[in-house]
Amino acid sequence: MSEDYRLKKNAVGRLVPTIINGENAIPYQGVGKYKPKGRKTTPPISTCADYPDDGNKVVKNLKTALQAAGIKDGMTISTHHHFRNGDYVANAVFNATANIGVKDLRWFPSASFPCHAPIIEHLKSGVIHHIEGSMNGPLGEFASKGSMKGMGVLRSHGGRYQAVQDGEVHIDIAVISAPTADPFGNANGLYGESACGLLGFALVDSQYADKVIIVTDNLIEFPCYPWQIQGNYVDYVVIMDKIGDPEKIVSGTTMITRSPDRQRIARLAAQFLRDTGIMKEGFSFQAGAGGTSLAFVDYLSNYMREAGITAQFVRGGSTQYLVDMLEEGLTNYILDGQTFDLKGVQSMRDNPNHADTSPFTSYNYHGKGMFATMVDAAILGATEVDINFNGNVNTHSDGLLLHGIGGWQNTIFSKCTILTIPTFRNRIPILVDEVTTLTGPGELIDVVVTERGIAINPRRKDLQNAIKGSDLPIRSIEELKEEAEDICGGKPNKPKLGDRIIAAIKWVDGTVIDAVRQVLD
Amino acid sequence: MSEDYRLKKNAVGRLVPTIINGENAIPYQGVGKYKPKGRKTTPPISTCADYPDDGNKVVKNLKTALQAAGIKDGMTISTHHHFRNGDYVANAVFNATANIGVKDLRWFPSASFPCHAPIIEHLKSGVIHHIEGSMNGPLGEFASKGSMKGMGVLRSHGGRYQAVQDGEVHIDIAVISAPTADPFGNANGLYGESACGLLGFALVDSQYADKVIIVTDNLIEFPCYPWQIQGNYVDYVVIMDKIGDPEKIVSGTTMITRSPDRQRIARLAAQFLRDTGIMKEGFSFQAGAGGTSLAFVDYLSNYMREAGITAQFVRGGSTQYLVDMLEEGLTNYILDGQTFDLKGVQSMRDNPNHADTSPFTSYNYHGKGMFATMVDAAILGATEVDINFNGNVNTHSDGLLLHGIGGWQNTIFSKCTILTIPTFRNRIPILVDEVTTLTGPGELIDVVVTERGIAINPRRKDLQNAIKGSDLPIRSIEELKEEAEDICGGKPNKPKLGDRIIAAIKWVDGTVIDAVRQVLD
Repeated sequence: MSEDYRLKKNAVGRLVPTIINGENAIPYQGVGKYKPKGRKTTPPISTCADYPDDGNKVVKNLKTALQAAGIKDGMTISTHHHFRNGDYVANAVFNATANIGVKDLRWFPSASFPCHAPIIEHLKSGVIHHIEGSMNGPLGEFASKGSMKGMGVLRSHGGRYQAVQDGEVHIDIAVISAPTADPFGNANGLYGESACGLLGFALVDSQYADKVIIVTDNLIEFPCYPWQIQGNYVDYVVIMDKIGDPEKIVSGTTMITRSPDRQRIARLAAQFLRDTGIMKEGFSFQAGAGGTSLAFVDYLSNYMREAGITAQFVRGGSTQYLVDMLEEGLTNYILDGQTFDLKGVQSMRDNPNHADTSPFTSYNYHGKGMFATMVDAAILGATEVDINFNGNVNTHSDGLLLHGIGGWQNTIFSKCTILTIPTFRNRIPILVDEVTTLTGPGELIDVVVTERGIAINPRRKDLQNAIKGSDLPIRSIEELKEEAEDICGGKPNKPKLGDRIIAAIKWVDGTVIDAVRQVLD
Repeated sequence: MSEDYRLKKNAVGRLVPTIINGENAIPYQGVGKYKPKGRKTTPPISTCADYPDDGNKVVKNLKTALQAAGIKDGMTISTHHHFRNGDYVANAVFNATANIGVKDLRWFPSASFPCHAPIIEHLKSGVIHHIEGSMNGPLGEFASKGSMKGMGVLRSHGGRYQAVQDGEVHIDIAVISAPTADPFGNANGLYGESACGLLGFALVDSQYADKVIIVTDNLIEFPCYPWQIQGNYVDYVVIMDKIGDPEKIVSGTTMITRSPDRQRIARLAAQFLRDTGIMKEGFSFQAGAGGTSLAFVDYLSNYMREAGITAQFVRGGSTQYLVDMLEEGLTNYILDGQTFDLKGVQSMRDNPNHADTSPFTSYNYHGKGMFATMVDAAILGATEVDINFNGNVNTHSDGLLLHGIGGWQNTIFSKCTILTIPTFRNRIPILVDEVTTLTGPGELIDVVVTERGIAINPRRKDLQNAIKGSDLPIRSIEELKEEAEDICGGKPNKPKLGDRIIAAIKWVDGTVIDAVRQVLD
C-alpha cells in the first residue's frame, strides 16, 4: 500500500509529506523561517441561557456527556496525559464511543502511554481512525508496524498548543480528567486521590474545543479553587469512581541514577555550567525527571551552594530535587510544567513560589514570546544525536516509534541546550552519522555531554571560549562517535523500512520536520 | 442635528437605535431571549520569531509603544479602571496619541472617572471620536450635553467582556496599567506603589486585542508572579514614573454609612436575608463597597455569628469588612472582582482563599454559565426604581448621564436581587412611575429595601411566603412611591431632553435596552 503524500525535501533535507490524512502540510523551512498568517481559531459563542443557573453541569456518565456534546463519526476527541501511565479516562472515553457506535474518530491526546494499549482494539475496529499525539510504547509499535489506518502526527507540548490555537487541529470534544472539580467545571490537579499537580496540558483543549467535558473522582462544592481549568469553558461534568491509579500518576519518590556512567554524565554537565559561568547569580535552568537529570540537579545544587549562588528560577517537570532547591533558597521560583512526584504536588499546592505554567506560557512558538527562550540552560536527553548535532527523541536506530516529543523541541530554544547521553545503549551507538528521525535541528543543540567527554557545537564559539582553562574533557563529536563505534563493533544496523509513512513529526511552528516510516519485520 | 438611528421599540417598550455609530445594533428582546450565533472573535497569530528571545519587551515610552503597535486614525484604544479616580495612564495615552497626530479614535475604557476630565480636550479636538464605557462625572455631563461627536455605548463589566469576545468591539491596542510587571509583560496588581489588587477588567483586552501594551511604575525581574495578566499576550512594556495616585486607587479604609436612614436600610436588608432563610449554612452573597453595603455586611455578620452560620463564598468588590469575615471564618472564600481598600489588596495577596475573579468567570453572559447566577443574594443600589421594579443606575431624574453600569446588570442575575435605596434624595423621589433610563428589567429585581419598608416583587411569591411571620415592614412598591411623593411634594420634574441620542445602554447580551438622550439647558 502506497499513498500519494506529495513528498518534498524540507530545509533539513528530509523527505516529508505535504499531504497528511488528506490535509495540506508545510515542509519545515528552518528555525524562525516560517511566518504564520491570519488569526487564531476560536470556539462557538455560548450563552448562559443554555446553561443551568445553579451552575450544576453534572450529567449521568461519560456516554451521556459525549452524546450531549453531539459526538459523531469523524470527530476529534482530545485527552491529556497528566496521569501518565496511570490514566483510566482515555480508555473509558473510547469504550463509551464504541458503545455509542461512532467511527473514524481522531484521538488527540497530549500523549499516550502503555496503559492505553486497549485503544489498539478501537484502532482495529475503526472506532478510532488515527492518533495525533505521542505514542509511547505499544501504540507506537502498533503504528510503526503500519497497522494504524491514518498517519500519526507527533507534536511537542508547545506544538500541540500552536496546532490547536492556529486551527490546524479542531477539537470537537475535549475530555479533561480532573483530580478535583466542582459541579460548575472548575478543576485542579492539586487535591484528591489522583492529584497530579497541575493541568496545563489541558489548557488549550479547554479554551478552544467546541465542547468540554470534565471527568473527576473528587467532586467538591463550588468553588474549586485554584481553578487551573476554568468552569466557564466547561459544558459537562462527569463523576467516575476512579479516574486513575495514584501509584502510577506520580511517583512516591523520584530516583536518582545509580549508574556510574550516568552519574559521570550528570557531573560533567553540572561542571560545564559552573566552569562556563552559565551558573551565575540569578541564572535559570531546566532539567527533566529522568535519573541523569536528577543527578545533574544534585551536582549543580552542590556547586551552587559552594559558590553561594541562587537561581532566579528553575523549570520542571518538578521533583523532590527541585523542591528541595526551592525550600533551601537555591532558587527563587519553580516554573513548573508538570509535577512528577508527591513532593512536587505538595509544593505546588503550598508554596506560592512554585508556579503553575502551561504550554501557552512556556512553549507556544506562535505566541508573543515564550518562557523557553529565557532559560539559561536546558539539560535534556535524546535517543540519537548525529555529527551535525541533530537530535532524535522519537525513534531508536531500529526505526520503531516509541517515544513522544514532549517539551523537547520547545526547550532546545534555551540559551544553552545540553544533551546528556551515553555514547551507546545495549551496545548500539547513540552518536551516529545521521539521526534516524530528525526531531530537532543541530543549530539549536549547543552541547552534547557523554560519559566519554563533552562536544560543543562548533557554532558556539562563545562556549568554546568560555570553557577554556577548564579541565573538562572537551572533544569533537566525531571523535566521540568513532569511539562509540569502536566499542560497539561498528555503526548501528540500518533498520528495514517500508515506503509507508506512519507518522509525521511536526516542528514547533506546525511545519513538518521529518517523517517516520513503517518498520518491516 | 438629528441622525437616522432607525429607532425601534424593544421588548421593554423603549425606543432604541438600531444603528450606533454607523454599525447595526439589535434591540433588547427579553432576558435570555437573544441567542448569539457564530464563533468568538480572535486575535492575529503571532510568532516568537518576531519577539526578543531574552523576553525583554521594554520600549522607550508610550509614544514609541503606540507607534510600534501601528496606531492610526480610527483605531480603538482600550484601558482599564482598576485605578479608579487615581489613574494617570489614560490621560498619558491620549496625550501621546494627540502628539502623534492621529484622529477619530474610539476610547474603550472599562470605566472613566472625573480624573479623566482632560480627555474632554481630545474629544473637542477630534483626537477621540467617542467613548464606549462608563462615563462617571464630567465626561458623562459633557456627553449628556450633546458635545461628544459619536454616540457613547455603556456596557456592564460582563457586557464589555461579551462585546469584545463576540467581536462587537475590536480592540486595536490595549493599554494595561500594571502596578507590578516584568520585562516580558507578566503583570499583577498585588505589589507596588499603585497596588490595586487585581487586573480582571483588563483580562479580555489582553486576550483579544491585536496589540497589548503594559505600562508600569514597578518593573521587577522575570517572573512577575502571580501573572494576573500573562506576558504571552503582551507586545510592549513601558515604564512610567508614576501610573497613578495611590491615595485615590484604593481607600486606606472604607467607610460605613453614618446616616440613620441608610443604617436602617442596611439592617432591614440583612434581616430580610435572615428571616427568609436565605442566610443559611453555605449560602453566598454579593455586596458592594458603598456605605450602605458595608453597613449591611456588618449587620449580616452579626446575624451569622448569632446563628453560627458560615457562608461558602462572598463576592466583592472586597473591603476590610469582607476580609474580616474571611479571617473570622464567617465565609470560606472571597471571590473578588475588584479590591476597594488596602486590606482587600493585602488579603488578596496573602490569603489563598481570597480568589481573583474576572468578568469572564463572573459576568460573561455569552459563556458556559457565570458565577453571578450562583449567588444567593446580591445587595445593590440604584438611582431610580419604578413600580415595575425596573432599575436605573445611569441617570438621575434630571436626565444627566453620570454613572456607569459596573457589574450591576450582571449581579441582578443572582437568586435574590435586593436594591437598597432611600425613597428620595435631595427631596427628589427615587421610586418613580417609570425609570428615566431602564438599565435592568424588573423581572430580575426581587426586592427593594427602603428606610420606609420593603417591597417584594409580586413575581416572587416564594419570597412573599418565606417572609410571612416576620415583623419586617413589608409594603407594596406603589405605597412606598406614594409616600415618597407626599414627602417631596410630588413626582420628580421631567427632564428637558432633546432628540439626539448621546448614549446607548447595552444589555448583558449585546442588545440595546435603552437610549440616553441629550439634556437641554
